[in-house]
Amino acid sequence: MIIIKTVKEAQEFSRGQRRSGRKVALVPTMGFLHEGHMSLVDKAKRLADCVVVSIFVNPTQFGPNEDLAAYPRDFDRDRALCEARGADAIFYPETSEMYFSDASTFVVEEALTGTLCGKSRPVHFRGVATVVAKLFNATLPDFAVFGQKDAQQVLVIKKMARDLCFPVEVVVCPIVREVDGLALSSRNKYLSPSDRRDALAINRSLRSAAAAFEAGETDAAKVRGSIVAELQAAGGEVDYVETVDARDLKPLELLARPLLVAVAVKFGPARLIDNLLME
Amino acid sequence: MIIIKTVKEAQEFSRGQRRSGRKVALVPTMGFLHEGHMSLVDKAKRLADCVVVSIFVNPTQFGPNEDLAAYPRDFDRDRALCEARGADAIFYPETSEMYFSDASTFVVEEALTGTLCGKSRPVHFRGVATVVAKLFNATLPDFAVFGQKDAQQVLVIKKMARDLCFPVEVVVCPIVREVDGLALSSRNKYLSPSDRRDALAINRSLRSAAAAFEAGETDAAKVRGSIVAELQAAGGEVDYVETVDARDLKPLELLARPLLVAVAVKFGPARLIDNLLME
Repeated sequence: MIIIKTVKEAQEFSRGQRRSGRKVALVPTMGFLHEGHMSLVDKAKRLADCVVVSIFVNPTQFGPNEDLAAYPRDFDRDRALCEARGADAIFYPETSEMYFSDASTFVVEEALTGTLCGKSRPVHFRGVATVVAKLFNATLPDFAVFGQKDAQQVLVIKKMARDLCFPVEVVVCPIVREVDGLALSSRNKYLSPSDRRDALAINRSLRSAAAAFEAGETDAAKVRGSIVAELQAAGGEVDYVETVDARDLKPLELLARPLLVAVAVKFGPARLIDNLLME
Repeated sequence: MIIIKTVKEAQEFSRGQRRSGRKVALVPTMGFLHEGHMSLVDKAKRLADCVVVSIFVNPTQFGPNEDLAAYPRDFDRDRALCEARGADAIFYPETSEMYFSDASTFVVEEALTGTLCGKSRPVHFRGVATVVAKLFNATLPDFAVFGQKDAQQVLVIKKMARDLCFPVEVVVCPIVREVDGLALSSRNKYLSPSDRRDALAINRSLRSAAAAFEAGETDAAKVRGSIVAELQAAGGEVDYVETVDARDLKPLELLARPLLVAVAVKFGPARLIDNLLME
């Protein structure tokens, strides 16, 4: 496994792979890898001959009062995990390699980003779309593999890849959870043991919502209300609980498939997101 | 020479070229080709083994009161010109191939586009940057060749290619003029014979500005004033006359190299642009 530090080297690496007839899959990450990321690496290995994991804590997707400085990092551990899982390369650029000080070009998506996390984090998806476009151009993959935990990000990236004609197939893998139901996230590191216990309310409330929907409940306000109540009862500070069309994130008042129930909630210092997809 | 109608075919064509070890150069145009475009094709042929000319009148770079519907088109003539000049392919997509009806992703450049044509045409450069990003991803070129007549466009595209890490070298060719000095433009077709005579004031006034600068004149306001006076004396309706730093388009009050003097002016129905670059 090689470590690639520059965009130019990444492009040359990928073009070399393609000249040898090998397909390339990218797994874009911000590092501090967990089994969720590893499931993306496994998927990438099944899709392509060569797997590139990018590790870059992208400053432009953090707002001014967010956790950029605190975001957990452990490159040595990440490298060992990628190597053990059979990745072929890690693209691990410095911030100065990814952003010139006078950078002024951005990729914006305007239909899907005014709601959910885009509402709470106004610059977030502009940062995400821009950096993913850059990562696509740096690593020139045939496939890019993302996790469903970031449900809105997945839709934004798919739309961007389609709208800008990127020759990249965006592939999505299911959420990976701890045995007790907590969705894996690098930000789970922020949770104290008691916060972590409280945070189990997230998945529990989503599972209750799924059960209600499957039993015939279609009143979206009622379902959202139950989730909010369960999160607050556990001490969570709710950012949003939304019931939306899973294709375009338009709010649903009458629940119907394809349904996405999306939640963002703070437990202690950690803002966590999770979701339920009923296709 | 082949005609390519879809993004997917264009990507396959370019990847096939590259697999055969051939470099690809793109000449992006809106058609109604003239010797200015042909000089770009000649340059592309010197740079690469395979030349793709794109012909697409991009609706998103026209404002609501601009000349999208009137913009001149003659595909048969364009095809013959490209073939005669040795292009290998024309990428000639329908608007519906380039834009889904629910397209919502845009490329924006924010440092260079608030001035000159970006001021007069507020949506123009968002449309240009977005379509060029799409054309890059469709035709996957090693080189993309643009004309210096669109001086601001050249800077915006170079910045976009750099900021988004496109693996494309942006190459710029000098303005091509008629023997009497009029810069070639598809929009010259809009000029009546008398408009056309009047429009010679554009190049004449720029040449006077160059001569004054070379003789030691550094008072930008005075130079701009002379150009405006000469254009108005010829019956032109001035949109802008600007003296700017040729690297970042920042206004200059004291003329110094690298200097760009940029002009937009209407003669009859035609809004024409031209410029003088002193590097």
